[in-house]
Amino acid sequence: MDLHDLIITLAEKNNNKIIMLVSDGIGGLPMTPGGKTELEAAKTPNLDALAKIGVQGMSHPILPGITPGSGPGHLGLFGYDPLKFIIGRGALEAAGIGFACGPNDVALRCNFCTVGADGKITDRRAGRIATEESAEVVKLLRAVKIPGVEIFVEPVKEHRFVVVFRAAGLGDNVADTDPQVTGALPLDPVGHDDAGKKTAEVAKEFFNQAKKILAGQPKANCLTMRGFAKRPSLPSYEELYGLKAAAIAVYPMYKGLASLVGMEVVGQPATLEEEIDVLHENYDKYDFFFVHFKYTDSRGEDGDFDAKVKMIEELDKVVPRIMELKPACLVVTGDHSTPAKMASHSFHPVPTLIVSDLARTDALDAYCETQAGCGGLGHFEAKYLMPLAMAHANRLGKFGA
Amino acid sequence: MDLHDLIITLAEKNNNKIIMLVSDGIGGLPMTPGGKTELEAAKTPNLDALAKIGVQGMSHPILPGITPGSGPGHLGLFGYDPLKFIIGRGALEAAGIGFACGPNDVALRCNFCTVGADGKITDRRAGRIATEESAEVVKLLRAVKIPGVEIFVEPVKEHRFVVVFRAAGLGDNVADTDPQVTGALPLDPVGHDDAGKKTAEVAKEFFNQAKKILAGQPKANCLTMRGFAKRPSLPSYEELYGLKAAAIAVYPMYKGLASLVGMEVVGQPATLEEEIDVLHENYDKYDFFFVHFKYTDSRGEDGDFDAKVKMIEELDKVVPRIMELKPACLVVTGDHSTPAKMASHSFHPVPTLIVSDLARTDALDAYCETQAGCGGLGHFEAKYLMPLAMAHANRLGKFGA
Repeated sequence: MDLHDLIITLAEKNNNKIIMLVSDGIGGLPMTPGGKTELEAAKTPNLDALAKIGVQGMSHPILPGITPGSGPGHLGLFGYDPLKFIIGRGALEAAGIGFACGPNDVALRCNFCTVGADGKITDRRAGRIATEESAEVVKLLRAVKIPGVEIFVEPVKEHRFVVVFRAAGLGDNVADTDPQVTGALPLDPVGHDDAGKKTAEVAKEFFNQAKKILAGQPKANCLTMRGFAKRPSLPSYEELYGLKAAAIAVYPMYKGLASLVGMEVVGQPATLEEEIDVLHENYDKYDFFFVHFKYTDSRGEDGDFDAKVKMIEELDKVVPRIMELKPACLVVTGDHSTPAKMASHSFHPVPTLIVSDLARTDALDAYCETQAGCGGLGHFEAKYLMPLAMAHANRLGKFGA
Repeated sequence: MDLHDLIITLAEKNNNKIIMLVSDGIGGLPMTPGGKTELEAAKTPNLDALAKIGVQGMSHPILPGITPGSGPGHLGLFGYDPLKFIIGRGALEAAGIGFACGPNDVALRCNFCTVGADGKITDRRAGRIATEESAEVVKLLRAVKIPGVEIFVEPVKEHRFVVVFRAAGLGDNVADTDPQVTGALPLDPVGHDDAGKKTAEVAKEFFNQAKKILAGQPKANCLTMRGFAKRPSLPSYEELYGLKAAAIAVYPMYKGLASLVGMEVVGQPATLEEEIDVLHENYDKYDFFFVHFKYTDSRGEDGDFDAKVKMIEELDKVVPRIMELKPACLVVTGDHSTPAKMASHSFHPVPTLIVSDLARTDALDAYCETQAGCGGLGHFEAKYLMPLAMAHANRLGKFGA
C-alpha cells in the first residue's frame, strides 16, 4: 500500500478548511556564518504569534541535498512524490504560461531558429529574438490547420513558444527535432510507439505548414520542437483527498501547476492583498486553498537580502486577514529555499508551520529556520505535508482497527 | 527515479573539494543515565569551533535501531543504500585485508580445519591455530596451480584466510563447503548456475591440491570454503558523483571498502598525523577525500571510556591542519556508534557535522550527541550524507525546472 492508496482510503469529508500559504523560496541563509537568515532578520510579529500556538518543522522538497525546480517543488507540496510523478518539459512549459493541458493534449516546447537557403540551421535561437517580436510571429502560426487536431500556439519568452496538439490517441513518446548543432537540418519528428508516431505525423505537418508561413521572416524563419509531453497522470485533489481545491496565484506558472492536480484557479489577483481578497470571496466555496506568494523567491533570486526581508514582512502583514477566516488548518511553507546569498533555488529544507487546534505545540516562539529545525514536526519530505495538513484538519480517519 | 539516478543526473564537476573525516564508532553513550558521552566528556575546542560555523544532524547508518558492521556502515556513508548493495562475505573479507577485488574475481573466506584419517572433520577451526603459524601454512597453499586461473591466497587471523580465483566467466553462486558439524566430510563445492559451476570446478581442484599440501600439518590439515562472492556491482564515485576520490586510512579494511567504490588508496600512513600529511600531499590531485580514524572505535570496543575520550581529543588536534586546506565542504562523522558502555558497535545514530560556506548554521556550539540530535540537518539515513556533502560543496544541479 503506497502513500496515495493510504490517503485515498483514509480521507474523510467534512467542513474543515485548509489554507496552504506558500511563500515561494522563503527559506534562506545567513550572509555570514552564525548570522541571521532573511526570515530571522524580518520583523514578523504575526507569524511569530502563530509559532507560539502552532507547530514547526522542516520540509525537504525532494530529498536531503536536492534542489528543486518550481515544478517538482510544488508537486511535493501538493503531496505527489516528485521523483515518481515527473512533469515532462512540454507540459511544464504549458503550465508555466498557465495553459491547462487536458487529457488529450500533447504539449511541446518550440524554439524559433534561423535557417539558410539550404534549410540548414544557422542560429538555433533565432538571434534570441525579442519577446514582443516573437509573440507577433507566434500569432502567425495560429493559421496552421490540421484536420481532426485542435492546435494551440502560445508565446513564452524570446525565441521560445509552446504548441499543444489536442486529439484523441496522441502520445508523447516523440524525439526532439532540435539537432543541437548549427549547420544541420532540423530533424524529422520520430515517434517511438504507435501513439507517438501519430503525434509525429501531426508534428511534421505542423512543421511543413509553419515553415511556409515563416519563410519571409528575417530571423525566426524556422522552428525546432522539444520535450513532447502529455500532462502527467496525477490523481486529482478531489480523488486523492476528497478536497474541493482552489488556487490563488498571481503568476501563470503556479496557476498551471495547481490546475495539473485539479485545483480550480480562482480570481485574477495582481497583489498579495488582492489574493487575500480572493481568498475571502471564495472561502465558502472550497475546502482547500493554495495561496501562492511569489516575491520572496524573486528577491532571493535577485540576491537582494534586504528586499527579501521586506517581502517577508509584506507576507506577515496579511496573516491577520487569513486568521480571521479561522481555518481548521493553516500551513505556512515554501516550495524550496532561495537564499539571497546564493541568488538561486537551494537544497536547504523549508521552515514550515502548521496552526491548528490539533497542533501539538512545541515551545517555539518565532517562525524561522533555526527554530523550525528543532520543531515538533521534525524533518520530513514535502510529500508528507498534505497528509499532515489533512490530519491537522481532522480529515483523515484511522488506519486499521 | 531512484536516488542514484537522481545524483548521476544532477552531479556537476567543479574545483570544490570535499573532505569526509570518519571517526570510526565516534558516537557514544553516557556510562550512567544523564551523564556525558565520550564526545561530551572530551575537550574538543577545534570541533566545537566548527560547530559554531557549521550545521549538525544525526546520521542513521542503516535504519533506526539497526547496528551496522563496518561494511554496511561505510557503504551508507559513501552513499550506497546498505540494504540494496550487499557485500558478500568473501568480498568483504578480501576488502578487510585490503585486497582490491577486480571484476573477474571470486573471493572466498576459508577456514583451516582438522580432519581425521577418514577425512571427517574433528575440529572446524583447526584448534584456533595461532595467526603467525596459520600465515606460514597459508603460504604453502600458494603452490596450488590451476591452468587459466590466477589464484591469490592471503592470511587473515587464526584459522581464517582468503582465497581469490581470478578468471573470466567465474560466478559466485556456489554453496559453502563447511558442513557446520564435526564428524562429517567437507562438502563438495556445488555451483547453482553455469558461472557458479565453473567456479565450483576450480574450487574443487583447489581443494584437492590443497589437501595434499596440507596432509602433514598437525592441526591445519584441511580446509572449508564459505561465502563465495564477487565484488558487489557498485557504481564508482566517478560514475555516481563525478568525483575523483582518494582514501586515506591506516587499516586494510577501510582501504578495501573505499577501493570497492573506486576510490584510490593513497599513502601508507601509520598514524592520524601521517594521514593528515598524506591529505596535504594529495590535496591538489583529488576532489574528494575519505580520511578514516580507527581508534575511537577500537577504544570503544575495549569498553574503555577514558581511552576513547583521549582518542577523540587526538582527533580534535588535527582539525586545524584540515581546515588550513579550506575545503568547500568538510564532513565530520562516523560509520556507526561504539559506546564504551556497550563495548561494541551500537544502533545509536551518529553525530554529524558539515562545515561549508553554504551551511545553514543552527545556533549550536559543540559537536556532540545532545546537540546534533536537534541540529539543522535533522535526522537522516546515512545514504543521504553524500548528497548533502555534494550540495554543500555546490556540486549538485537543480532537479526539474
